[in-house]
Amino acid sequence: MSGLAPSSLADAPPPPAGSLEVAMVGAGQLARMTHRAAIDLGVGLRVLARSADDPAVKAGAPHILGLPEHIVDLRALASGCEALTFDHEHVVPEDLLTLESEGHTLAPSAAALLHAQDKLHARVSLSRRGFPVPDFAHARRLAEVEAFAQRHGWPLIGKAPRGGYDGRGVWPLQGPDDAREVLARQDHGLLIEPHVAIERELAVLVVRSRAGDSVCYAPVETVQRDAICREILAPARIEPDLAAEACALATSIAEEIDATGVLAVELFATGQGLLVNELALRPHNSGHYTIEGCATSQFEQHLRAVLGLPLGLPTLLAPTVVTVNVLGAGEDGDPRRGLRDALAVPGAHVHLYGKAHRAGRKLGHVTVCGRELGPTRDAARLAAALLGGREP
Amino acid sequence: MSGLAPSSLADAPPPPAGSLEVAMVGAGQLARMTHRAAIDLGVGLRVLARSADDPAVKAGAPHILGLPEHIVDLRALASGCEALTFDHEHVVPEDLLTLESEGHTLAPSAAALLHAQDKLHARVSLSRRGFPVPDFAHARRLAEVEAFAQRHGWPLIGKAPRGGYDGRGVWPLQGPDDAREVLARQDHGLLIEPHVAIERELAVLVVRSRAGDSVCYAPVETVQRDAICREILAPARIEPDLAAEACALATSIAEEIDATGVLAVELFATGQGLLVNELALRPHNSGHYTIEGCATSQFEQHLRAVLGLPLGLPTLLAPTVVTVNVLGAGEDGDPRRGLRDALAVPGAHVHLYGKAHRAGRKLGHVTVCGRELGPTRDAARLAAALLGGREP
Repeated sequence: MSGLAPSSLADAPPPPAGSLEVAMVGAGQLARMTHRAAIDLGVGLRVLARSADDPAVKAGAPHILGLPEHIVDLRALASGCEALTFDHEHVVPEDLLTLESEGHTLAPSAAALLHAQDKLHARVSLSRRGFPVPDFAHARRLAEVEAFAQRHGWPLIGKAPRGGYDGRGVWPLQGPDDAREVLARQDHGLLIEPHVAIERELAVLVVRSRAGDSVCYAPVETVQRDAICREILAPARIEPDLAAEACALATSIAEEIDATGVLAVELFATGQGLLVNELALRPHNSGHYTIEGCATSQFEQHLRAVLGLPLGLPTLLAPTVVTVNVLGAGEDGDPRRGLRDALAVPGAHVHLYGKAHRAGRKLGHVTVCGRELGPTRDAARLAAALLGGREP
Repeated sequence: MSGLAPSSLADAPPPPAGSLEVAMVGAGQLARMTHRAAIDLGVGLRVLARSADDPAVKAGAPHILGLPEHIVDLRALASGCEALTFDHEHVVPEDLLTLESEGHTLAPSAAALLHAQDKLHARVSLSRRGFPVPDFAHARRLAEVEAFAQRHGWPLIGKAPRGGYDGRGVWPLQGPDDAREVLARQDHGLLIEPHVAIERELAVLVVRSRAGDSVCYAPVETVQRDAICREILAPARIEPDLAAEACALATSIAEEIDATGVLAVELFATGQGLLVNELALRPHNSGHYTIEGCATSQFEQHLRAVLGLPLGLPTLLAPTVVTVNVLGAGEDGDPRRGLRDALAVPGAHVHLYGKAHRAGRKLGHVTVCGRELGPTRDAARLAAALLGGREP
C-alpha cells in the first residue's frame, strides 16, 4: 500500500521546467512555515504528507498523501518539480540515489543529506575532511566500547547512527552494563563518544543555493532540556572572533559536503574550541527566530536556494531575538486556549503548528525581538508558558 | 444558482463558539495575506471564493465557492464562525443586516461597513459627526451639478456612490456636457465634489478590536497614478503634529462609526488641513508594508481584532519602509518571470498574489526597509518594475 491518495495533484500534468515548483518530503511544522514563504514568493510547494492532519496540510499546502519510506510516493511527489527537498531526513538513502539516477534534482543531494541521516557517516566524513568533531568510535561489541572507555573514561554517550531525533536514539552510558544493554538493541552498532564538557551549544545556519553562493546567519545559542531544544538566543553570547570562526566553519562544511538549501550546524563550544555535533540539511528549529528576527527567513531562503534563485540578506534586525518552543503539556493542553493571554504579552510573535497536543511535542513557538536579552527572554518564556498550559 | 460547490467545508459540522474560526468574504490578495497570518496564529480562516483560481484559494485557504451577492453563500460561509469579515466591500448592505438579525457576528458591522460601500453615506455620516470632508453634494439632475459648480467652479469630480474601486466609478467633470453624460448612466445619481488641491495623499490604519481597544499605525503617504495606488511611503513625510492629528482623527472615526478590524482612512493633506477622502474597513493596500515594516502586520491585527484578541504593537521597525505595487503589463507578463532578477535586489521582499496577469491588475508588491527614503524607494521600484515586466 503506497498510501497515494487521490488529491488535486494526482491528475495534474507535470509542470514545465522553470516552473518554480518545489516538492518537500514531509508536512510538519517546517513544511508549514515553508508553505507560508511559498505564498509570499508565489512559487509552488507541494508536500508529502502522512495524514491530512499534518501541519502543512492544515495550512493548505498542496499535498500527496503517502509515506517517505515508499519510493513510489517520493517519485510521484517529485514528478515535474524543479527540486525535491526535505522537511525531515527520515527517508531511505538508497531511494534518494535511485531518484537521482532517474534524473530528479534533489536539494540537498542524496550524498549531502546522508550527513543528517547517519551520524556515524557525518563524523567520519567531517573528521576525514579535517573538521573538529568530538572523539568517536563505531562499536558493535562491548569490547569496543570498553576500549574507548579506557581512553576517555566513563560515562560515555551512545548514539544510534540513524533514526534519532529530539533525544531519541541517544543514551548516556554510565558503565559496561548500560553499554551491553543498549548494544543488544542496536543492529547497526553505536556511535560512541566521550562526555564533552560543553560551555555553550551553538547553531549556525548557512544557506547555500544550487548556484553555489551562500549566506551565513549569525550563530545562535540553543538551550536544551531533556535533549529537546527549548530556547534559541540570537545572537549567541560569544566573542566576535568565535562567532566568525563558527560561521567560517559552517560555510566551509556547506561547501565541502556540497549542501543545498539550509544547513544547520550544531556546535559545542568547549574549552578546546568548537566541535561539530550534528548537521541538519533543512530549515531547523534553531532558525525559527529568522521569521521576525532577520531580513530574510530561513524558510524563504530555503526555497530560494533549492530553486537556484538569489539568496536574501541574513541580517539580524534587533539587538536580541529570543525564540521559545511551546511544548505540549498533555491531553487537555490545546495551546489555542492560551492564545488570548499569550498575545497580550507585548511583542510576542506566536506561531502555532496546528498539531494534536501530546505531552512534550513541539506545538509552536514564540519569538520576541528586543533590545536586551533579559526582558526579551522573559517575555518569550511567559508567552510560551501560557500557550503550553504551564505556570509561567 | 448559488455557486456553492462541494468542498471540504461543506460537510464539516459548525465549530463551537470560541472556535477561533473567522469567515472572510472574498478570496483576493487581502484574504491570501490574511490566510498567511492565520497560519501563524493557528486560527481558522475560511473564505468565500468566486473561483478556485482566486489568490487565497491558491494559497490553500479553506473555502466555499460562491458569490458575495448571494446571501445563501454568505450564510453558509458564516455558519459557526466567530466572526464574518471582508476582503472587499462588494456585498449587498441589506444582506448584511439580515445576517446580523439572524445572530451572525459581523466584524465590521453592517452599519460600519456601509461607510466603505457607499461614498455618499460616508460623506454624510462623517460631516454630520463633524469630521473634515471635502464639500460635496448629491446630484441626480444636471441643475444640481450646475448649482454646485456655481459655488466651486469647474472642473468637478463625480463619483458613483457605490461600487467603484481603483479609479472605476470616478469621473472628472470638465463642464455641463461631461456631467450630463455621466449622470445619464447613473441610476442613483452622483456624489459631486470640487477639485481639491492636494499636497499629499495620506492613509492612516487604525485597528479596533471587538473589545473596543485600538492601535494606530503611523500615517503613510500613498502615491497614485491613474487613480491606482502605486507606492506607499512609511512614514509619511509630514510634521509630527500633523501625523498626530491624522492618527487622532482616524482613531476618532473608528470609535464614532464603531469599526471593527482594520480601518483605513484615506486623507488629503491640503492647504486647509486634513480632509477625509474615503474609508476602507478591511486590510488595505496602504498597509502591506506592515508585513515586514512593523512589529505586527495589518493582517494579523485584523484577525486579532475580529476575534476580540489583544492587539499587537504597530511599531515601525525601520526609519523608512517603501512598498511598490506590481501592476500587470499585459498578457505575457507573468511576474514570476522577473522573480530571479527581483530577488537579486538587496532587501527586496517580494509578494506575488498568484493572479492571472492582466494589464493594470495588481499582481503583487515589493517592500523594502531602509535607512533613507531615496535608495529604499529606488530598490523597491526596481524590483517591482522587474516583476512587472517593465523597464526599471
